[in-house]
Amino acid sequence: MDLTATTTDLANAAAEAVRLLPGRSLDPVLAGLLLTASDDGVVLAGSDRERAIRLSCSAAVHTPGRVLVPAKPFAETLRALDVPMVRIAVEGARLAVRTPNARFALPLLDADLHPGVPTAPPLAGSVSGELFVSALTTVAATASRDEALPLFTGVRVRADGSRLVLAATDRYRMAVASLPWTSAAPLDALIPAALLAEVAKQARGQVSLHADANRIGLAWDNSVVTTALLDGSFLSESKLVLSAVDTTVELDADTLLAAVRRVALYADSRGVLKLEVGDNEIRLRTADQQAGEAEETIKADVSDGRTSPSFQSRFLVDALKPFSGGRVRLAIQPGMRATVFSSPNPEEVMDLRYMVAPMRPPATT
Amino acid sequence: MDLTATTTDLANAAAEAVRLLPGRSLDPVLAGLLLTASDDGVVLAGSDRERAIRLSCSAAVHTPGRVLVPAKPFAETLRALDVPMVRIAVEGARLAVRTPNARFALPLLDADLHPGVPTAPPLAGSVSGELFVSALTTVAATASRDEALPLFTGVRVRADGSRLVLAATDRYRMAVASLPWTSAAPLDALIPAALLAEVAKQARGQVSLHADANRIGLAWDNSVVTTALLDGSFLSESKLVLSAVDTTVELDADTLLAAVRRVALYADSRGVLKLEVGDNEIRLRTADQQAGEAEETIKADVSDGRTSPSFQSRFLVDALKPFSGGRVRLAIQPGMRATVFSSPNPEEVMDLRYMVAPMRPPATT
Repeated sequence: MDLTATTTDLANAAAEAVRLLPGRSLDPVLAGLLLTASDDGVVLAGSDRERAIRLSCSAAVHTPGRVLVPAKPFAETLRALDVPMVRIAVEGARLAVRTPNARFALPLLDADLHPGVPTAPPLAGSVSGELFVSALTTVAATASRDEALPLFTGVRVRADGSRLVLAATDRYRMAVASLPWTSAAPLDALIPAALLAEVAKQARGQVSLHADANRIGLAWDNSVVTTALLDGSFLSESKLVLSAVDTTVELDADTLLAAVRRVALYADSRGVLKLEVGDNEIRLRTADQQAGEAEETIKADVSDGRTSPSFQSRFLVDALKPFSGGRVRLAIQPGMRATVFSSPNPEEVMDLRYMVAPMRPPATT
Repeated sequence: MDLTATTTDLANAAAEAVRLLPGRSLDPVLAGLLLTASDDGVVLAGSDRERAIRLSCSAAVHTPGRVLVPAKPFAETLRALDVPMVRIAVEGARLAVRTPNARFALPLLDADLHPGVPTAPPLAGSVSGELFVSALTTVAATASRDEALPLFTGVRVRADGSRLVLAATDRYRMAVASLPWTSAAPLDALIPAALLAEVAKQARGQVSLHADANRIGLAWDNSVVTTALLDGSFLSESKLVLSAVDTTVELDADTLLAAVRRVALYADSRGVLKLEVGDNEIRLRTADQQAGEAEETIKADVSDGRTSPSFQSRFLVDALKPFSGGRVRLAIQPGMRATVFSSPNPEEVMDLRYMVAPMRPPATT
């Protein structure tokens, strides 16, 4: 193999490959990157048996070939270069990364030992990368990180006519987003949230989803990542039905968010704040024997009842962040029923609802 | 106590107080901040028995008084506020932090239990804050963090006529800086590097140093911090005498720094690079059985011999960073004698020399 590539293009592809492969594998072969040079340029591929990735990058290929190199050192070397073009060539048992003044030689691994990189399953449809990333930023972060309950570490991705519905819950809150979907085949899959959170950092342009009974693939630009689906049937999003809303509050999301962050400094170890609903305002309150007490009043449009729930402050922060820059509507239900956060003027394009379960109020409020 | 202050001024003073007091104390009284309001404004003071701090902030004082409050919650509350003015008032057993829409109430601690905050020792002299901070950024970082050898965790600060000389070593390298000094009294003290590193982040304007046999004080703007001196006699900076320089290399510091960072990716577990001195260039080289090998050539002005030492790459990085943006001169001595990094055109104002001990070369170069 012998090729010349634009340094930043190849460095970006290698960096993306390293980020998409979690690299938990102790097997150096599975921690390796397969480079395949042909007339079409160079393809970077890898698989740790759970995930598989494939990225392409244009290159002037002088001699085609296929080699396996340690992924991280390859990516770090390319990232450190400050010259516009880089030469990549096999030299004996080394892959040399060459610039006019420098030579970096990585040990070659045995490419024949690599299990290969599966191709993506058939196309299910596609979404706008921008909307998909925006939805994932909220939804994937709502999934649980507790791998003892794998069901809650996933995001349910379901095609519903011309809409794609993304939903995740950790049992205490649930986020549901819906966005326009160009359908090619039915889709209802439970995808590891950790991969989607990583995809949300990288995807751009149009994102296409590929699925069969066992695997899901996400493709954008020159990148494809595939992974095994999670097993199990997800809670239905229909839990979001608001059967008993008796209080509705509308206010500026950022004002409430800033107040939550301040008042939360005084919360007890549970981190719970009370949201007292008044006539034209709400009052956040908390108190703790050690920390002291805090309260802040915020102007709000209140309709119907005065049900005043309490919430964990960090869940309030997560529920409010997606509505930053605009107003947010809280649909409050009495008792231990959830409150739903949504936009008072839902956009045609993307619809997001965030449900948070209430807590017992702080002891001394 | 009852006062009104500009929120950012008081928040900055409280944040600076929290950063200057390490807060390792488990005693809530020592982790507290003494607030004293008088016609002159408000003074924030604290002491954890090792360090003592005193910061002043202008305020409109409605009722003078003196209270002790938990330092961190007080600082965090002020930092979180987004209104221009804040009211601080004692209300029963609480200190209330009030804004038009909010009230945060911190528990008061018993100020009579506080050991008090010692005042600064007599003035020794003063330096430009800008130069002092610039010198400390390099010198304080060179001290050891190993508290088992307290001598090496200090910076020797010594007045020498109209110059202030700062020196620190961890035994493998030594940094010595000298800057203009307005002397008021003799000074030769070993100051904990950790405090100086913190001071380097905060000091501005003119910095005055205050010292007696046991304590040192640093004062700038409206802040004073004092601490106990370290015991022991520091290595003499005269070790920097260059008795056997046989090779001198001059080159661009940033070019060498970038090359060191690249080539170091291929170093063995010791992180050692060889610096081969050629005729009009130097070549950085390293090799490791696992990582592969790397070399990079950099143009340089070489005079006298061709002595080619090896160094730990992280020490090279630390030695080169202070010369970033210009050229650096390496005065190389044969054998296991140190190499001295300095500016080829030493400024009148500040002089910095960085000495690094050589290592055995990488095994396979």
